[in-house]
Amino acid sequence: MRRREFLGKAGGLAALASAGALAGCGSPEGNASDGMRDTGLRFHWRMVTAWPHGSPGLGAGADFLARAINELSSGRISVRVFGADDLVPALEVFEAVARGSAEIGHGAAHYWDDVGPAAQLFTSVPFGMNAQETHAWLYKGGGLELWRDLYRHFDVIPFPCGNTGAQMGGWFRREINEPADLEGLSIRMSGLGGEVMRRSGARVLSLAGDDILDAIRAGRVDAAEWVGPYGDKELGLHRWGWHYHYPGWQQPSALVEALINRDAYEALPVTLRQAVTHACRLASDHMLMEFTARNQQALDSLIQDYGVPLKRFPEPVLASLRRLTDEVLEEMAEEDSTARRVIRSYQDFQSRMVRWREFTDLDPMSG
Amino acid sequence: MRRREFLGKAGGLAALASAGALAGCGSPEGNASDGMRDTGLRFHWRMVTAWPHGSPGLGAGADFLARAINELSSGRISVRVFGADDLVPALEVFEAVARGSAEIGHGAAHYWDDVGPAAQLFTSVPFGMNAQETHAWLYKGGGLELWRDLYRHFDVIPFPCGNTGAQMGGWFRREINEPADLEGLSIRMSGLGGEVMRRSGARVLSLAGDDILDAIRAGRVDAAEWVGPYGDKELGLHRWGWHYHYPGWQQPSALVEALINRDAYEALPVTLRQAVTHACRLASDHMLMEFTARNQQALDSLIQDYGVPLKRFPEPVLASLRRLTDEVLEEMAEEDSTARRVIRSYQDFQSRMVRWREFTDLDPMSG
Repeated sequence: MRRREFLGKAGGLAALASAGALAGCGSPEGNASDGMRDTGLRFHWRMVTAWPHGSPGLGAGADFLARAINELSSGRISVRVFGADDLVPALEVFEAVARGSAEIGHGAAHYWDDVGPAAQLFTSVPFGMNAQETHAWLYKGGGLELWRDLYRHFDVIPFPCGNTGAQMGGWFRREINEPADLEGLSIRMSGLGGEVMRRSGARVLSLAGDDILDAIRAGRVDAAEWVGPYGDKELGLHRWGWHYHYPGWQQPSALVEALINRDAYEALPVTLRQAVTHACRLASDHMLMEFTARNQQALDSLIQDYGVPLKRFPEPVLASLRRLTDEVLEEMAEEDSTARRVIRSYQDFQSRMVRWREFTDLDPMSG
Repeated sequence: MRRREFLGKAGGLAALASAGALAGCGSPEGNASDGMRDTGLRFHWRMVTAWPHGSPGLGAGADFLARAINELSSGRISVRVFGADDLVPALEVFEAVARGSAEIGHGAAHYWDDVGPAAQLFTSVPFGMNAQETHAWLYKGGGLELWRDLYRHFDVIPFPCGNTGAQMGGWFRREINEPADLEGLSIRMSGLGGEVMRRSGARVLSLAGDDILDAIRAGRVDAAEWVGPYGDKELGLHRWGWHYHYPGWQQPSALVEALINRDAYEALPVTLRQAVTHACRLASDHMLMEFTARNQQALDSLIQDYGVPLKRFPEPVLASLRRLTDEVLEEMAEEDSTARRVIRSYQDFQSRMVRWREFTDLDPMSG
């Protein structure tokens, strides 16, 4: 994807009407008067995804979304799902949707480098908010509007469409005991966490799932972070006897998005736009529940069935990563005005959520 | 509501087909072949609620649900919302839906004493799971099936339809410094938390919102727990200069439910049953986001604008409440086989979530 080519499309686009019929949904449907007259047309959409078709959690989430759109539109929108590489490679999903070669995509914002640095913030912020807090920011704190602003120039509309919940810190050939242990480490990590690792002295590789296994087999990486127990176990990352570190400082939650081509969206009558909006929100909730329940099951199995050595990152390591995260965010805010707006909005909301968390946290084992 | 009258209806009811079209939704829609032929009929439903019409958070959630049902059914189900006392009193919502004098209700399970003691577990369990964990239990851990079993004898189908998130511990005329400070205290508290308070030596009153204010004015209570900063501030509980204690051990999350009369539900063609199911899930997510964002805003205002004295319950107080909670749950499990099944399922899921939480908790201020 070439940024210039996309930026050329940015001029003269009317802002989407943002008055969703359900208050607080942040849905971009227009009023009935903005929509086409509903002529009973049927729509056939292609969905390109950033994950292997049917892969647990993420690929399954894409399938769930396709079914939900079909169901909520009373069968009037049918969606055919393509896995990564079936139609386009994982990292070209955004481009395919922007070009209209697919009407809808399912992916994660941190994959779309060419949208600008701010995109990464809409997947995860290291040491950031958990899923509930992040969704509250999107729906009630202005986050979704910022996200839509960011993609507007590309004629793509993002919809929150899932969350993995908290992830784990990753698999390490050698135990991490102090910040210096990260120096020279060759690690697979994506998004802003990767940049923080780079500043910790690590060599960072961004690899797709299967490529991680190849890299481990070939001895090309010393560490790898993927999703969390559910995804990691499915991929087989526990098979090398590496140390499993927690917590997942790099992704306290990770948003998954549906990307919809603006023309395709606007070609829908208003009721079908609502159906798509609602389907995304249902798919979002479904995915978080799926990961919440399955992560724990998988973690139990990793401990009991495979004897995986679990180890918390020592506090000095977390402190160092935290300091570097602040550095990365401040530099982004300085260099890119869009990123700055997103970061300030996010930090403001997070600082308030941190206060609220302080009053609500209850150790379930207290007493 | 008389239990015997309801129990008389329990015989010979066919179990609802539980194969929802969206896997994992736990929705009770049958397959297309089970449903009525869709004749394009329109449906007019009355919704009775346990809250004042339009009240923030809860009443607004009922309105949101009514709009969502209307929208997702393409206008084929219209829902008229009645506040508490408009058609029936708050505590008679369940009975009205069971009898069919309203097709749908919006309330909280702990209000329905006559359904049996297990009902309380479907609002809150003291020292229990947070919202995300609770919803994972409902959708992925068998909780929703148990809830539906419980109401089946009354021809009422419950749908998770909101959550207040974590609540606060309540307002206290005198600061609570040790377990003995609870003895002789006259406190408004509902649900299982109330029973725990009773065992702590308190006198417990279950009062509706407005009645709490009357009781405070008349000097009839020394303490009151309501919802959380958002609801508490709206009600005006901060106006007496009392101590605001946290955390809300009695309600780490509180489920709100939609109750649907079985005949009304089964009269719907399958696509409209799905619309209702999905509307409940959207309304559920919406309410949690609303409370998450508004609670924090309200808490800030209580601190900054009103100088409310905030105080964490000392650990010995929480430890004592925790011990009494275990006692209450064990007695319930001994005395009522239905409650026992629910408690064991809940505790099993919670013990696993506690382990998962341990691996994911990340102090946002670490470093």
